[in-house]
Amino acid sequence: MTDVKHMKWWGWGLEGVAFEHEDKPGFAPFILEQLALDLHSVEPSGMPSFDKVTVAKSLASPAFTKSLSDIVGISNVTDDKMERVVHAYGKSLRDLVRIRANQIERTPDLVVYPETEDEIQQIVDIAMAANAVIIPFGGGSNIGGSLEPLRTEKRVVISLDMGRMNKVLEIDSDAGLARIQAGALGPDLEDQLAAKGWTIGHFPDSFTHSTLGGWIATRSSGMQSDKYGDIADITRGLRLVRPGGTVVIRPIPSASNGPSVREMILGSEGRLGIVTEAWVQVHRVPAKRDVYAYFFPNFETGLKAMQEISESDAAPTITRVSDNMETRFSLATSKASHGITKFVSGTVLPAIFRSKGWNLDEICLSFIGYEGSERHAKLQKKLVDKIVKKYNGMGVGKGPGILYDQKKFDTPYIRDFLLDRGAAGDVSESAAPWSKLQKLHDGAVDAAHDAFKKIGAQGVIISHLSHSYHSGACLYFTFGFKFGKDALGDYDIVKSAIQQSFIDNGGSISHHHGVGLEHAPWLEDDISASGIAVMQGLFDSVDPKGNFNPGKIVAAPGLDQGNSGSALKKSAATKPTTTRATSSASKAAPRRTAGSTAKAKVNAAK
Amino acid sequence: MTDVKHMKWWGWGLEGVAFEHEDKPGFAPFILEQLALDLHSVEPSGMPSFDKVTVAKSLASPAFTKSLSDIVGISNVTDDKMERVVHAYGKSLRDLVRIRANQIERTPDLVVYPETEDEIQQIVDIAMAANAVIIPFGGGSNIGGSLEPLRTEKRVVISLDMGRMNKVLEIDSDAGLARIQAGALGPDLEDQLAAKGWTIGHFPDSFTHSTLGGWIATRSSGMQSDKYGDIADITRGLRLVRPGGTVVIRPIPSASNGPSVREMILGSEGRLGIVTEAWVQVHRVPAKRDVYAYFFPNFETGLKAMQEISESDAAPTITRVSDNMETRFSLATSKASHGITKFVSGTVLPAIFRSKGWNLDEICLSFIGYEGSERHAKLQKKLVDKIVKKYNGMGVGKGPGILYDQKKFDTPYIRDFLLDRGAAGDVSESAAPWSKLQKLHDGAVDAAHDAFKKIGAQGVIISHLSHSYHSGACLYFTFGFKFGKDALGDYDIVKSAIQQSFIDNGGSISHHHGVGLEHAPWLEDDISASGIAVMQGLFDSVDPKGNFNPGKIVAAPGLDQGNSGSALKKSAATKPTTTRATSSASKAAPRRTAGSTAKAKVNAAK
Repeated sequence: MTDVKHMKWWGWGLEGVAFEHEDKPGFAPFILEQLALDLHSVEPSGMPSFDKVTVAKSLASPAFTKSLSDIVGISNVTDDKMERVVHAYGKSLRDLVRIRANQIERTPDLVVYPETEDEIQQIVDIAMAANAVIIPFGGGSNIGGSLEPLRTEKRVVISLDMGRMNKVLEIDSDAGLARIQAGALGPDLEDQLAAKGWTIGHFPDSFTHSTLGGWIATRSSGMQSDKYGDIADITRGLRLVRPGGTVVIRPIPSASNGPSVREMILGSEGRLGIVTEAWVQVHRVPAKRDVYAYFFPNFETGLKAMQEISESDAAPTITRVSDNMETRFSLATSKASHGITKFVSGTVLPAIFRSKGWNLDEICLSFIGYEGSERHAKLQKKLVDKIVKKYNGMGVGKGPGILYDQKKFDTPYIRDFLLDRGAAGDVSESAAPWSKLQKLHDGAVDAAHDAFKKIGAQGVIISHLSHSYHSGACLYFTFGFKFGKDALGDYDIVKSAIQQSFIDNGGSISHHHGVGLEHAPWLEDDISASGIAVMQGLFDSVDPKGNFNPGKIVAAPGLDQGNSGSALKKSAATKPTTTRATSSASKAAPRRTAGSTAKAKVNAAK
Repeated sequence: MTDVKHMKWWGWGLEGVAFEHEDKPGFAPFILEQLALDLHSVEPSGMPSFDKVTVAKSLASPAFTKSLSDIVGISNVTDDKMERVVHAYGKSLRDLVRIRANQIERTPDLVVYPETEDEIQQIVDIAMAANAVIIPFGGGSNIGGSLEPLRTEKRVVISLDMGRMNKVLEIDSDAGLARIQAGALGPDLEDQLAAKGWTIGHFPDSFTHSTLGGWIATRSSGMQSDKYGDIADITRGLRLVRPGGTVVIRPIPSASNGPSVREMILGSEGRLGIVTEAWVQVHRVPAKRDVYAYFFPNFETGLKAMQEISESDAAPTITRVSDNMETRFSLATSKASHGITKFVSGTVLPAIFRSKGWNLDEICLSFIGYEGSERHAKLQKKLVDKIVKKYNGMGVGKGPGILYDQKKFDTPYIRDFLLDRGAAGDVSESAAPWSKLQKLHDGAVDAAHDAFKKIGAQGVIISHLSHSYHSGACLYFTFGFKFGKDALGDYDIVKSAIQQSFIDNGGSISHHHGVGLEHAPWLEDDISASGIAVMQGLFDSVDPKGNFNPGKIVAAPGLDQGNSGSALKKSAATKPTTTRATSSASKAAPRRTAGSTAKAKVNAAK
């Protein structure tokens, strides 16, 4: 068997690693207050039983399986139950709820682990000849429903796991470019680069469990994107295996050679073929890499400060500001003896806040990062500090920043912790012009609370701004609520409300999580019906029989899209209209309702 | 009649404006030395006679014409001969040679001037119903053959002149975004923005005669792109009229919503529909905007300095360094009493150069720009100066920079001046990783000189680096030679050799001039056969009958591509191969030979 490691089949991250709250005295009170969930009395459901998971028989014939093992070797093709289950889903809340409920809609029939691009070309050509479906699989961290086969898929489905293709192949140190295989996980490639003094500078929340190929497939963005750019900027060249041949985009810093095929592949979620490797920008590991913490009196001033920083001569690498509720959550998840909790729960900082006339129910925590030479980092901080001061912000040093750096990849574990205890936690993010961010924020918060009311649950939604650009930024929302008997039904109502609020307030359906099945219903509102028609034209023309991850982003021809929670038919309509995609035109009721989704009973303690 | 102004029908720029050399004592000697052309003895051919220009009868029926004038008004639809001639070509060397030789392959049948997007939608829908062809027309400065109808086109061809749609419609000052109509020329939109304290920061060489829509259609890049980005970065949202509806891409700073439809429209040269307006990033006019001049001992050190600047903490807005031949050309085109010529022709600077051991036949002139607050600009210059010094460069102050700023848009006039005197001048540009730039430079210079030898002419090729990115930069080449009896045949040999050298040395076919018919033969070498297949799939699916500027970038289905000098069939082959697009695979002989082009006798003095 292959030695490619995967996350828990039923949850985020590594076996044996879990979120704990005993050392975080603020956590249980926060959850009790916000979700009406008493962590001290609830009995966690724990890991579900794999024996109870049922998986349909693989559709792959022995002959077909053999044709694949002739290519990659017998140990790299499998229809093993665990392998098929691990590759059935990503790690969205929807995925976790379904897998805990033994509701696997359609597992891949085979999991194949290629080692070379040449093998992938052969696999693709054999799969096309057999009219099979191929879904590329990286770290499995996707939360948009991009990895699951359509429930109604009658053809053989191959999950093409890229995990063996994890090498940094080449570094062009003159150009600051590295050629890296698509299956390399964040730590894989960063370690290989660091060994030679380089960094890719791309650190998404999923970093530890996501791959370069996955980043490219979903247009990922990392925490230091203010400096290093999004993966769409970082990726200069790439190779995409398609039936009969490979698209080769050479690493060119900028080119005028027609519509960008590179930018068609970026975000394509496997629908155009298999990305095997990419030339990405790399940078010398900087002498300085610091994250400082600040407080603002409220979110509005925090947003304004971030905007002014983005317009200024300062060039920080991270700009992030939490709203008050996320600030409280951050304090609640800090260990008693560490960082800001110590500050804020002490006497000094609250006294200072009070002396400034700040309301503790409005204060906002911010992190700003600086990188480069010692001198450059210092200067940037000086420029930023001046702007922070103008907006009545206040620096509290590097301590909390170090803490932020250490736990930035751990948040997803909390979701499993909550799910074990009958509560849902998930995320939605959007981007919009600076002029619309406050409205986008307030709109999503209001929409979530209206939805909580609708499902009769107490819930919380927290948010931060991150990833600043000249004209706007990303707002990242995390929400949680104690669900009722129909976890997915409740979830759909909340998630739909938040997504719809993005559209209504001028935001994109996603800033860096992709479309998949999950966000597809709003794609038409985002890029217009005629925009969908253009995209659909591309997919239908390049993949006429829908062999490459069909149904994701927009509908594939002739396939029923009806997986749990996807009302994709509506959004994938290709009929162009002359309607302007204004917010007024899109104020219709949420498209995704509980009624359109399959019901799932969740194995959770009451 | 409409009051939209156009460039000379036979040349660049405004009537009455022309290049003069009498006040530039170095120019005639340079031309004599480099092109073996004696400006003092040659008799200029002057402006050709419009009376001798023959234009075929318009194919548009009175009924069709009326249906259009019912939309835009009778004064905004015309089959006037001058209008049709002005819209037949862009301003490439090939265009100028052909128009002077009365070799207009196919004029548009009608020129239509819409005023609103709604009118364009009606025009598009009527044109589709009649199976007519639409070619959008901005400033007419295109040099890639993007504006000419295919010679064999049997359908009615409409040139859709966007000149009446030239307004800045809206400024979102909070977000730094402006909504601007696609037909606005550079000065139009910059003046409207400047009136409110804003700038788009996009200044391509063609600025005075090119439009926002044209920039978008060809992926333009401006001189300050190091700071402001290419037009692909600047353009955040846009609207594209298509049959039956409009693609609306809202202004989002960055989004993860599938393959980028925005990036499909950018560079599409009218093949996907008509761009009517865009949301673009705008910036407050900076307090400081200075261009400083430097000298380097040779091009190699100049390149190295630019690379180190791009990697450094410094953030200049322009980084440009000329090779020695372009340096000599710059000196030769300077007025005796001004700027660097005065310096270099004096005694002080040469003495300094000699004292440094520099060879005057190797020195390279460089321009570096700084913008922002007084303090920021000063700091950037300080950081840059340190790097310049490290590479033995030497600053010579702002004087030549001011000169550069003033004459930067005038160079195209020289081409007409030379054409009048039996010599061709044209440009080709490419981009490549830093590690390949020296080779790209030397390869193009060698290829050009080999080609000059082949055509039996003395010629010159000059070059500069501009537009720096993290991983590479653009190299811009200008070449000239005295042509023989077959100007276009000679030109094809030289241009082909240079384009082929780009591919052979890892460069793109173009950095910011687009594809059109001119660069299409090398597109397959640039983005691979499978890449072409993807792009062709997009076009064929979205525009199945080839109604939108057919044949540009890649072939349109069922149409003969055979305009002068376009061997497009070869490059547009959609057969995917597994061949890697390496330089070794593309070292075939130039695809475009004189034999494949129509012959043109040029009305030029011997």
